[in-house]
Amino acid sequence: MVTESDVTTGLCTVFLRHTSASLVIQENADPAVLRDLARWMEGVAPEQGDYEHDAEGPDDMPSHLRASITRSSEGIPITRRKLCLGTWQALYVWEHRATGHRRELVVHVAGD
Amino acid sequence: MVTESDVTTGLCTVFLRHTSASLVIQENADPAVLRDLARWMEGVAPEQGDYEHDAEGPDDMPSHLRASITRSSEGIPITRRKLCLGTWQALYVWEHRATGHRRELVVHVAGD
Amino acid sequence: MVTESDVTTGLCTVFLRHTSASLVIQENADPAVLRDLARWMEGVAPEQGDYEHDAEGPDDMPSHLRASITRSSEGIPITRRKLCLGTWQALYVWEHRATGHRRELVVHVAGD
Repeated sequence: MVTESDVTTGLCTVFLRHTSASLVIQENADPAVLRDLARWMEGVAPEQGDYEHDAEGPDDMPSHLRASITRSSEGIPITRRKLCLGTWQALYVWEHRATGHRRELVVHVAGD
Repeated sequence: MVTESDVTTGLCTVFLRHTSASLVIQENADPAVLRDLARWMEGVAPEQGDYEHDAEGPDDMPSHLRASITRSSEGIPITRRKLCLGTWQALYVWEHRATGHRRELVVHVAGD
Repeated sequence: MVTESDVTTGLCTVFLRHTSASLVIQENADPAVLRDLARWMEGVAPEQGDYEHDAEGPDDMPSHLRASITRSSEGIPITRRKLCLGTWQALYVWEHRATGHRRELVVHVAGD
């Protein structure tokens, strides 16, 4: 998408239009990192939490909690027509609900 | 503010000038979500924490902790002169101190 | 860096190219705040965590966890050729590994 935009130097902003999923930049090499991350987050914001908001199922409120401490937007500079992510970085959409949902991202690219 | 700025397509960056309050994008529908969020955060960064930094009251250091894992800035794309927030999203200033404080936001809008 | 860029009004985006360190805007006055923050984070994402990903040492996976709930990017508006940080705000690179690492930041400045 950045290549299509014809921007050599600039800024790419990624925005996720949801409150029960979020963005996270994490290691792209060992898939065990994402598994450890998910397992740990289940402890930080557990499904068994006696939440007042439970009309949308027991996995909904913990999803909001997990989204609140991760990211809704991320700004990534563009250099030489590429996102300047580090060697080990990838940007993930993190689904916090128990079942898959269709998720919408908005990507804004500006520069020269 | 975005409408006033006369930008049709662009980027709105919101920045909060404080370290004991923060930004969070959360559900705008059921107010119970915000209550659950606050209650959960009180457990994650508790007021009873045996903090070294306590000169500004027992609610100050937990406020810094809560701010550190939520957001100071948020980048939200603008399309058709509107923030492209999702249907259920709202951007909140989250006051972490026990009593209300005057808080300053800086909003930057760029685009065409 | 912002002063060098000759931008009077604009946006500065700071991006950290790592997944075991992160950005955080925190109080710049009392160094005890940073010590309390570090001690608290050690409890939130502990080194003793029975992680699947442990090939890079016991301090690596907790570093990824800590980075996931803090920031990879931060957008700070520029006014009158200066970052509009609040009086008590400073932007820190937070090293989550046990030993120091060389870290790369990318800073993007846009404006007039």
